[in-house]
Amino acid sequence: MLLLRAVTGRRLPPLPLPRRPCSRSPTGSPAAGGPRGAAPVLAALLGLGAVLAYGERRRRVAQAAQAPPAPRYPLYTREEVGRHRTPRDRVWVTHGTEVFDVTDFVELHPGGADKLLLAAGGALEPFWALYGVHNQPHVLELLREYKVGELDPHEAPPAPADTQDPFAGDPPRHPGLRVNSQKPFNAEPPAELLAERFLTPNELFFTRNHLPVPAVDPDSYRLQVEGPGGPGGGVSLSLSLPELRSRFPKHEVTATLQCAGNRRAEMSRVRPVKGLPWDVGAISTARWGGARLRDVLLHAGFEEEREGEWHVCFEGLDADAGGAPYGASIPYARALSAGADVLLAYEMNGRELPRDHGFPVRVVVPGVVGARSVKWLRRVAVSPAESPSHWQQNDYKGFSPCVDWDTVDYSTAPAIQELPVQSAITQPRPGAAVPPGELTVKGYAWSGGGREVVRVDVSLDGGRSWRVADLTGERPVPGRAWAWRLWELRAPVAAGAELEIVCKAVDGSYNVQPDGVAAIWNLRGVLSNAWHRVRVTVTR
Amino acid sequence: MLLLRAVTGRRLPPLPLPRRPCSRSPTGSPAAGGPRGAAPVLAALLGLGAVLAYGERRRRVAQAAQAPPAPRYPLYTREEVGRHRTPRDRVWVTHGTEVFDVTDFVELHPGGADKLLLAAGGALEPFWALYGVHNQPHVLELLREYKVGELDPHEAPPAPADTQDPFAGDPPRHPGLRVNSQKPFNAEPPAELLAERFLTPNELFFTRNHLPVPAVDPDSYRLQVEGPGGPGGGVSLSLSLPELRSRFPKHEVTATLQCAGNRRAEMSRVRPVKGLPWDVGAISTARWGGARLRDVLLHAGFEEEREGEWHVCFEGLDADAGGAPYGASIPYARALSAGADVLLAYEMNGRELPRDHGFPVRVVVPGVVGARSVKWLRRVAVSPAESPSHWQQNDYKGFSPCVDWDTVDYSTAPAIQELPVQSAITQPRPGAAVPPGELTVKGYAWSGGGREVVRVDVSLDGGRSWRVADLTGERPVPGRAWAWRLWELRAPVAAGAELEIVCKAVDGSYNVQPDGVAAIWNLRGVLSNAWHRVRVTVTR
Repeated sequence: MLLLRAVTGRRLPPLPLPRRPCSRSPTGSPAAGGPRGAAPVLAALLGLGAVLAYGERRRRVAQAAQAPPAPRYPLYTREEVGRHRTPRDRVWVTHGTEVFDVTDFVELHPGGADKLLLAAGGALEPFWALYGVHNQPHVLELLREYKVGELDPHEAPPAPADTQDPFAGDPPRHPGLRVNSQKPFNAEPPAELLAERFLTPNELFFTRNHLPVPAVDPDSYRLQVEGPGGPGGGVSLSLSLPELRSRFPKHEVTATLQCAGNRRAEMSRVRPVKGLPWDVGAISTARWGGARLRDVLLHAGFEEEREGEWHVCFEGLDADAGGAPYGASIPYARALSAGADVLLAYEMNGRELPRDHGFPVRVVVPGVVGARSVKWLRRVAVSPAESPSHWQQNDYKGFSPCVDWDTVDYSTAPAIQELPVQSAITQPRPGAAVPPGELTVKGYAWSGGGREVVRVDVSLDGGRSWRVADLTGERPVPGRAWAWRLWELRAPVAAGAELEIVCKAVDGSYNVQPDGVAAIWNLRGVLSNAWHRVRVTVTR
Repeated sequence: MLLLRAVTGRRLPPLPLPRRPCSRSPTGSPAAGGPRGAAPVLAALLGLGAVLAYGERRRRVAQAAQAPPAPRYPLYTREEVGRHRTPRDRVWVTHGTEVFDVTDFVELHPGGADKLLLAAGGALEPFWALYGVHNQPHVLELLREYKVGELDPHEAPPAPADTQDPFAGDPPRHPGLRVNSQKPFNAEPPAELLAERFLTPNELFFTRNHLPVPAVDPDSYRLQVEGPGGPGGGVSLSLSLPELRSRFPKHEVTATLQCAGNRRAEMSRVRPVKGLPWDVGAISTARWGGARLRDVLLHAGFEEEREGEWHVCFEGLDADAGGAPYGASIPYARALSAGADVLLAYEMNGRELPRDHGFPVRVVVPGVVGARSVKWLRRVAVSPAESPSHWQQNDYKGFSPCVDWDTVDYSTAPAIQELPVQSAITQPRPGAAVPPGELTVKGYAWSGGGREVVRVDVSLDGGRSWRVADLTGERPVPGRAWAWRLWELRAPVAAGAELEIVCKAVDGSYNVQPDGVAAIWNLRGVLSNAWHRVRVTVTR
């Protein structure tokens, strides 16, 4: 709606003339004139109605008419385009083989300047693929106003992958991701996009890999299910992908996954911690489809309840140089609970799992730290002990701020399972200059264990006074609130004001976020859920 | 152990001589001499061994020998004794008909001066009944050293109860309780006693009555169980107390109950709130015995699960002047869950329920705010709506600090069910002067929903640095941690230091307590779970 209004509000030129030649263009100014009027004329002719028999010839004529007789725009390499990422350097983007200087459109972008700048220096397609509103003729016409060049067809192909690199087989990624580590790949969606949609597009879903992405042949894939034997101990199963899909009903769950290290960057500012500097984006939401873990375990003969403390351990196909796989476990009761909705997922937002998210099968444990939702799942084992994996025993645990690397004893803290209540501001961004008038603050809120977010308080004065934000979307099923709530607050702000925007959420157990980071600081930088603070300036 | 050591470490006088006549004694000094040696001599003689036929005569002789020929101590009324409550006014206590000035023993009391002072001005028996270590001959002998008088046998009887007073039928209460409201009765155990025992003695268990205590005849008592009808809708039952006890297995659960208003006094200090000024004692722990609500509802024909959102509503026999009963409800899923351990309790710490705690039957909902554990239970009803009661609809809900009595809309907030993580310091008390050397800090920690307390951090410097406290007692069953954990920390403290002791707990979902009160302030003063702070001075 907003985009359409903005588009139709601008004069649409009859022809896509390059009206803003780039002053830094290295190979002369674009040619003017030529047969650029031919295509619309032919299109109009074609609109008169044609018979099918005439179709093929017409297509060839049209192609001939559209094909330029000679390069009329300067040619640029992708590297050259990539140097234009800011208004100061001009903002260039590509679409197909065309290059555009959209600097003057940035502030007019209906989705916000910040969103358009995410594509600066690169291709528009990965972003347009996520935001369907761009798939309209008007948009492309508008864009053509800003054309300044073509991509050089003779550009050198990318260097061949290093076959010695264990990460050489990793899949391609969306350029919009904010990368915290390339190998292993750890990346988050930009905060600007995070709360734009309730379901995070697969391409932007935060990725937290511990090891290289395994290349899995879906035809030979087998999932092993094993138990300790004995009464109610289950039989071992080996399930192919078609068997997993056909033997068990497909169950769909919309669930948010969050990395234990989300918002670690804020914790590092108090005192250095060990870990990747995640901003607020190590959290995303998808609709997952797959077999319930419960159904698979019951099928294997396991009982609803087991005496004593039992666990269900998972192993991935991703392994370190010594062959040790990624592993984690969850309590048996959660694995078997119908209400806990634990999945062996093979679908993500209606598509097969992307390679970065566990193709062909991953665990999804709603309400629990992402680290237990093991990807590229190869083995499920019922055991009287938690997973012996490093990531269950000696990582992903919380400690007192007084514990340091000399005194830490991982056996003294429980492995993180359910996460505490969390929220963050995604708009505006820290340091932004916002116009006076009505300010819109947006963000997300979520809590572990299926606890519903019941309220988000927002302050514009550092926490001295509060307002209640509007929660968007539908109320979840109580006790099974696996997905985040997006929220927003609109408030008047005065020209010249310095704002410290703060948010804090309350969950269904009336748990709240702690005020400050210092008292929840921990050496590993996990569980960073203090009030989120964003300072902005209101322009005059 | 401590008491015995202290007792045997003191010289035990051969005779209970009054050695510290009270300077404020109104009726002269105690008589000296007399036949006070006769009793021990006779006791020694009796120890030689006697035949049964001689028993009755011997008893009479002993009585005659023990009976004083005349009052040898001054006589005091209970009111006079009650004026001696502090070391400055002298500390008097009674035991039986005897009056003691224990001022000089206060600091020697092995359980701590603060505990002994709880009985100052009144009878020792209610306290000794709770602390069995006093039931030893040495203790009474020690006490007799401090005898200064006798209770006046001619003292006027207490005034007759006001039969027009709806609270006239309330039961007698333990004098150690700290009363926040007499009518209806609302009282908490003194913080000094709270963390002394894992199970709170029934007599000291915090009492939160909303209305007069009903007088229930256990013989005619009936519990009504009703449903909405329809498939799986259950049949109506009317259960007598013997039926409830015999038809369903007795299930025992150790659970902490906490009032939503616990620690409200701290919230009032930030801004006034509406509600009783509970200190840290609106929380207590007992071992409850009764029928599982689940078993009763399944017996009545209700199904394990119901489509949609259903509730189980409770009504008490306590009613307001208009006949409206106290009421509350919990979600159907919790009521039916085997893991939630919801009881229709008829026992408390191995005894029948005291009248103040719901005799003959109350609900106990572990992990949930006390307000849902309806006492004097008369009716259980399955309903598609929450209880229509005032206390479910228009009380016991949390709001943003920005909501006041002009803007509050109770329909916007969920009824409190599970409570957030909580902890408090019970020793030392605010304003105390503690000796230099090793300081012992004690307290409790608990979280709602069966979430285990995994850590308590304690600071002695207002939260700038932290130490990890020792959790006492056994680790609970994960997910069913219904009872608090008591904790303590021992730390060296320097003479003359001013300490701000702070505690904060972490639960199994790594939820933490908020740093400050202001941002969780709410007009009703509920959910007060900020870090608990106690300032003390270390003596020189």
